[in-house]
Amino acid sequence: MTFGNVCNADEGSPIGVFDSGVGGLTVVKEIMHQMPNEKIVYFGDTARVPYGSKSKDTVTRFSQQIVRFLETFDVKTIVVACNTASAYALEELEKESSIPIIGVVKPGAKAASDVTRNGKIGVIATEATISSGIYNEYITKLNKDVTIYGKACPLFVPLVEEGLLEDPVTDEIARRYLTELIDLDIDTLILGCTHYPLIRSTLGKIMGKEVSLVNPAYETALELKELLQDRNMLNDRHPALGENQYQFFVSDKAEKFKTFANSIIKYGILSAKTVNIEQY
Amino acid sequence: MTFGNVCNADEGSPIGVFDSGVGGLTVVKEIMHQMPNEKIVYFGDTARVPYGSKSKDTVTRFSQQIVRFLETFDVKTIVVACNTASAYALEELEKESSIPIIGVVKPGAKAASDVTRNGKIGVIATEATISSGIYNEYITKLNKDVTIYGKACPLFVPLVEEGLLEDPVTDEIARRYLTELIDLDIDTLILGCTHYPLIRSTLGKIMGKEVSLVNPAYETALELKELLQDRNMLNDRHPALGENQYQFFVSDKAEKFKTFANSIIKYGILSAKTVNIEQY
Repeated sequence: MTFGNVCNADEGSPIGVFDSGVGGLTVVKEIMHQMPNEKIVYFGDTARVPYGSKSKDTVTRFSQQIVRFLETFDVKTIVVACNTASAYALEELEKESSIPIIGVVKPGAKAASDVTRNGKIGVIATEATISSGIYNEYITKLNKDVTIYGKACPLFVPLVEEGLLEDPVTDEIARRYLTELIDLDIDTLILGCTHYPLIRSTLGKIMGKEVSLVNPAYETALELKELLQDRNMLNDRHPALGENQYQFFVSDKAEKFKTFANSIIKYGILSAKTVNIEQY
Repeated sequence: MTFGNVCNADEGSPIGVFDSGVGGLTVVKEIMHQMPNEKIVYFGDTARVPYGSKSKDTVTRFSQQIVRFLETFDVKTIVVACNTASAYALEELEKESSIPIIGVVKPGAKAASDVTRNGKIGVIATEATISSGIYNEYITKLNKDVTIYGKACPLFVPLVEEGLLEDPVTDEIARRYLTELIDLDIDTLILGCTHYPLIRSTLGKIMGKEVSLVNPAYETALELKELLQDRNMLNDRHPALGENQYQFFVSDKAEKFKTFANSIIKYGILSAKTVNIEQY
């Protein structure tokens, strides 16, 4: 069967997921946990990573190429597992595609809006996500009485990729970034970049137990499940395809991706292939 | 007049310079100082920066596109003002172009080989440059009795771009990266990434006065001048073109580039334009 205006896709079709690099695998991990029967096609733009320091035009052009690539798999839905791409490109992507596309920002915004008690929410993210003002936009649509404080944290991604997950340097940098949010008395902090859940313990220690940390990766998987259920697209048959259940593609060399990726998801990245994404 | 097999170029033609982003401006700055009459066309690949964590194939493909772009200006020579691109792509670029192309690695290697007294040279650079083994290759061609110790320093570029040029965090990270080179008793350290001269004072403080720091940006400008003199291509007439003497192009938004660029070169980035480099 087919669904609405989605061509060639049925409930057994894969979910497309993309990110600027490896961070989006924190979203893949949540989808694997919450929807174990789903097939996933992941694309990480490792040749052009990072997106968080780049402009809206560039991030949108890159994201459009990736959506065109994922569409070749007849995916039933696409998850933009990157906060920067969700902030800058989601609207344009939705205009151009007939496939339902969900980003990580809206689910994160909704969860934060539900969780806050004092109406003061902090967002930490890339420069691009913060300057887009997207979390502010979504949250104030849900609740006008909330104040959102954004803080760009450009060193977190390189520190995570260098493996300094629990380290005095990461502590020091986190303290510098977070001090102003602590002083503003926020009670909820959105981890607005897919790398940040990997330093969750450092962030939690600095913010203190009274502050709720919201992980949009988790919230996005929940929203994805609801979307698939609502559209009768959730797969209830185990695909039993072995290594073909999860397919991974990257724009740079596959080998390098596999090392970092395997440290995030324990299912094992069974195969990763290189794609010349500029041709899409 | 024209030179050798270089079509349409004469001594008044511009010099093409490229880098993955803004770091190559440390080379531009040296060229401006040493050859004030030369016109320069600079390209910074700010949409796809950084190169230092990416593969040889990807860096080579990106560099080939940039050379094709620079050739449209009838440049008389091209300077690969990026250690990673020099390490990975120079050989391929030379095969495909009739224009003389020089990288930053060979001049840096030559200077280090001249400077060392105890024959122990350290190289700090990106992961890509270190894993290419290129400094080792060039230096041992010049002097077999020298030992080269490479150390990848992936956090230096983000720290520089965050503006932490003199900061306890940069000190701490530099100490971690450099300790093993100090223990190996090197007397010469090559700053094998165009961003590193910007934290020269931190590096010098940690290495101590006995260790000579080699800046390939400076050495490359010297080699470029020699090359132009040898080929009778050095411009001895002041171009008197005002703002057209220096032209800057980037693959991402121009505005952002200008802010960082103006902090490196004080001549002022008078104009910067965006180019869709993937089309070349």
